[in-house]
Parts: sequence; structure tokens; C-alpha cells
Amino acid sequence: MFVDRLVESIKSKKNPSVVGLDPRIEGIPGYMLEKAYREFGKNLKGVSMAVYWFNCGLIDGLRDIIPAVKPQMAFYECLGVDGIDVFHKTVKYARDKGLLVICDGKRNDIGSTANAYSKAFLGMADLGENEKTPVFDVDALTISPYLGYDGIKPFIEDCRSYGKGIFILDKTSNKSSGDFQDLCTYNGKSIYEIVAEKINEWGESLMGQCGYSSIGAVVGATYPNQAKILRRIMRNSYILVPGYGAQGGNGDDVVPSFNSDGLGAVVNASRSIIFAYKNSIYADKYDEADYVCAAREEALKMRDDINRALEKKFG
Amino acid sequence: MFVDRLVESIKSKKNPSVVGLDPRIEGIPGYMLEKAYREFGKNLKGVSMAVYWFNCGLIDGLRDIIPAVKPQMAFYECLGVDGIDVFHKTVKYARDKGLLVICDGKRNDIGSTANAYSKAFLGMADLGENEKTPVFDVDALTISPYLGYDGIKPFIEDCRSYGKGIFILDKTSNKSSGDFQDLCTYNGKSIYEIVAEKINEWGESLMGQCGYSSIGAVVGATYPNQAKILRRIMRNSYILVPGYGAQGGNGDDVVPSFNSDGLGAVVNASRSIIFAYKNSIYADKYDEADYVCAAREEALKMRDDINRALEKKFG
Repeated sequence: MFVDRLVESIKSKKNPSVVGLDPRIEGIPGYMLEKAYREFGKNLKGVSMAVYWFNCGLIDGLRDIIPAVKPQMAFYECLGVDGIDVFHKTVKYARDKGLLVICDGKRNDIGSTANAYSKAFLGMADLGENEKTPVFDVDALTISPYLGYDGIKPFIEDCRSYGKGIFILDKTSNKSSGDFQDLCTYNGKSIYEIVAEKINEWGESLMGQCGYSSIGAVVGATYPNQAKILRRIMRNSYILVPGYGAQGGNGDDVVPSFNSDGLGAVVNASRSIIFAYKNSIYADKYDEADYVCAAREEALKMRDDINRALEKKFG
Repeated sequence: MFVDRLVESIKSKKNPSVVGLDPRIEGIPGYMLEKAYREFGKNLKGVSMAVYWFNCGLIDGLRDIIPAVKPQMAFYECLGVDGIDVFHKTVKYARDKGLLVICDGKRNDIGSTANAYSKAFLGMADLGENEKTPVFDVDALTISPYLGYDGIKPFIEDCRSYGKGIFILDKTSNKSSGDFQDLCTYNGKSIYEIVAEKINEWGESLMGQCGYSSIGAVVGATYPNQAKILRRIMRNSYILVPGYGAQGGNGDDVVPSFNSDGLGAVVNASRSIIFAYKNSIYADKYDEADYVCAAREEALKMRDDINRALEKKFG
């Protein structure tokens, strides 16, 4: 079951943080882009191959210290078919190296269509006459809840059948997340609280041996006060916490998403880690060819920051 | 501007309905699948190529009577990289044949990531040093609103720059759509009404010469009473209406989404058209090799059903 594998990896690496593989072209080292342009042309294929090399470097350099990577689909989709190919290759590469892969796709649709998305990421595609094949085959996927339960159910079923997980958007990390998520309903609860109650309820059917569910939630590091409330509502949900680092969240901000056992949440940072070599604090130490070393140093700093904050709070 | 091209095409074809290209393997004619298996293998490539032939047949057979097609991303994603390749080829084929393409992706993410999705479908991807290239380059994309305005803004900007359109999910056609969309807020408005007010407001910045906005909404045919309310709130938004046909909606159900000018909405049907040859009413008339003829007959029936209902209501 996904959540047991996640918790085991978090415990063995003593690290509740994951790294977002969100490769923006402006962050890829110039030498890497130029080599890819020379070999594949200055086109989507060229950029995609540079992304793949960039990702492989990060995976090799971080695999022993992080439990999972979180590739963001948008950054692969915007490179077209070649980008999707590199997304798929990245997933395989990361899993082969022992990392869990949480795909940040925020997919959502009505029942039968949600089922097709679920097949793409978690389950198996139909080849006719009862032959099936895995497709992208990630370990977990993020899901948007706006369409309600029948759009979530197919994913839950595949989580059960294939040992996968989902993280359902609840209170997202962005500035405008309150536009609809914070709306207060007639009974005094906000939308994010009602979504959380549903996530908690749906999660009960898929509890792992670790005491947490493979049906998790997304709660941004940028909203620690809401996280406190949500942690209480979703006692057994694993919470994926984006918004650490470039978006402004720090170790103390993510603590409310954890339980007193020091578990229950996994924190993501993307830009601040993978493009750390561009950070002025590393300017004298690393150049672009050392991007993996800079990422590793920053990832260790993040791990220690979160563990220190957890230690302070829970002892 | 997208909405002007859509209205022009709806008027010239006297047809406010579009066909969803949602190719499920169980609906693809057997002879087509077998040919693709022989040529490409019984794998995702084989199924994808059968999907492509199936789509091209439909596009050729329907192009003179419908204004647009609506491919559903989930059915291409669940065929992996080959499926995305065939999605891209289908988009090109349909646009070359003069059809508008509304991609049903329901994409959503926070600002900078939404920007990457927008580049993928509506705008241009960055190749470095100010070189850009279109990626999937559809005419319009469906969007999920859960993350609020900063997740919508990048799409609106690309709509403006590249003459594209978006349809934002408001009240979806599925049974569970009420789980969150129908929740009543403290001021007595439901979430779908508040989302509609925002869609209306955002749409004002992108009005076409036809009097409608390129920022549209999705309202299911299965909820005609809610559609009446939403039509009043979003007076100038073009409304994409799924749920006709296989999901249960008929001509009378979609009328509330239109304005008295007979415009303002475009109705989608997928399964009932593209797999019409499997419908028992056509069993004596068409076999699987005639799937395009069956689809055409059903598409004309749908057009006439909607036009008759509009005529009855608005004269």
C-alpha cells in the first residue's frame, strides 16, 4: 500500500520532504541545454532531452536522502509529446532508483472519464480481450475535488487494486486559494473544511498498517493556521504540503500539518532545491555544472529545518 | 478571437452542437483495432493508431455539419505517450479540416504552473533566447476553478495574446457535482453561483464582436434549473453544455443555457454520436464499418433536436 511505503521511506531516510521536479527551461544549466540543442535540435525534443538529463542528475544526487520526487505534469505537458515521453522516462528512472513518484497532475473529471485518468497514472490501460498494461505508473497522483465523489471514486478503486495513493486538493498554497476554498457555508464551515471532512471519510476505506490512509490531502505551507484545523479534521490522512521555499513557507509553517508522532505530512519544495545553484548564497561555491551539489545541500538544509521544527514542537 | 470564430461557425453550419472525441477502446470498430494491432502490435501504440484512424473518419464525416470537436484528454492520456501523440495529430487534423478544437482537459494549478499548462494548450512554449513554438495549439481548453483567480489568469492572458478561449467548470453534469458545487454559502448563494459571478466578471475583459466573451463556462445539460439561474448571472459567457445524449440530457434540457438570440451555448455529445453504430436502433442499418454514417445520422438528429427546442422557445 502506498502510504506504508511512503512512511517506511520517510522513516528510513529520516526525511519528511520531497523534491518537486518542475523543470523550467530558464533553470536548466546552459551547457546542458546547448548539448541537447546540438544533438536534437533547438526544438521541443531538444529541451525535453535537456530536462531528462537534468532530472536524472537530480535523482542520482538526491536518491539516498529523499523518499520521493514530485514531477509537476504542467512542465512536461508544455513540452508536448516529447515532454510527456521525458516525464514517463523520469518516472521510470526515479522508481528504478528506489524513489517513490508523486505525480502532481491535479486531474479531475466525471466518473467514467476520471476512470481513464486513473488508468493513465495509477491503474492499467485496456488493450482489448482482458489484456492490460500499465501506462505512466506513478505511485501517487494529486486530484482536484471540484466535481465531487464520482470523480474521485475511480482513483480510490485503483489505489486499492494497485497499491497506489492520491492527494486531494484541499487548501492550496497560492494567494487566490481563498477565492472559493475559503467561502463560508451556511453552517459556518468553510469549503476547505467540508472537503477535508470528505477526504477523511473517503480515506477510512484505505488505511495502511502505519495508521494513515493512502487517500491524502494537499494543504499549503503558506496557510499554517488553516493547517492546524485541517490536521484535526483529517487525523489519518497523509498531507502533502507544497509552498515551502520559493513560495515562502518554512519549517515552523509546516509543523501544523504533522501529527505528534512526527508523521502525517510530507513537505514539497521545487524551485528552491532544483535551481539552488542559481541562488546568490551559492554563487561563490557552485557553478551551473554543480547544480546537483547545490540541490543536495539545499535539500539537506530543508530536511534539517523541518526536523528541527518537528523536534522543537513534538520533542 | 475564439468566441467570434465559434459563433461564426455555429451560425454558418446552423448547428450549436459539438462532438466529443472520447475514444474508448470498447467503442472502436473491431476491424480497425485488428488492423492497428497487426501493423503496430497489441500495445498502446496499436490502440493509439486505431484511435487516430477512428477520429479521422469522424472528422471527415462530420466536418461540414459541426462547428467543433471536443477531444477529452483523459482518453488520450490513458494511452500514454502514443496517446498524446495521437491527440496532437487529431488536433492538427481537425483544425486543418476547418473545425475548431475545444480540448477538455480540466487543467488547474497555481499561477506559475497554470502558466505552463496554458503554454501547452493555448500559448507558446519557450525554446530559449526568445524563441517560442506552439505545442498542442488547440482553440479552447476547459479549466477547473478550485484554485481561484491566480490559477485562471495565465489562461486568460494567453486567450488574449493568441485568440484562444477557455471554458471554466461551474456546474458539472455528473451526479456528484452537488457535493461541493451546490454548497450554500452564508450569504445564500451556492458555490456554482459565486463561481459564475467570477466567470462573468473575468469574461468582461475578453468580449468578442459577437457580444460574447472568450471566457466561457461549463454547465451540464443534466441541471436545466441551475442552468436558468446561471444563464442570468453569466449573460455574456459562452456556455459549454456537456451531458446531452448518453448522460441523459435532451434538446429541452439544454435550452435554458441559451439566450433568446439562440446563441450563448454550445452543446456536446460524445458516446451517443461517435459510438452510434452500436446503438440498437441502428443495428439493422449500419455495421461497424459504417460507424461514420451512424455518427452523422445521430449528429444531425442532435442538431435538429436542439434547433427544434430553440425554435419552440425563442421562435
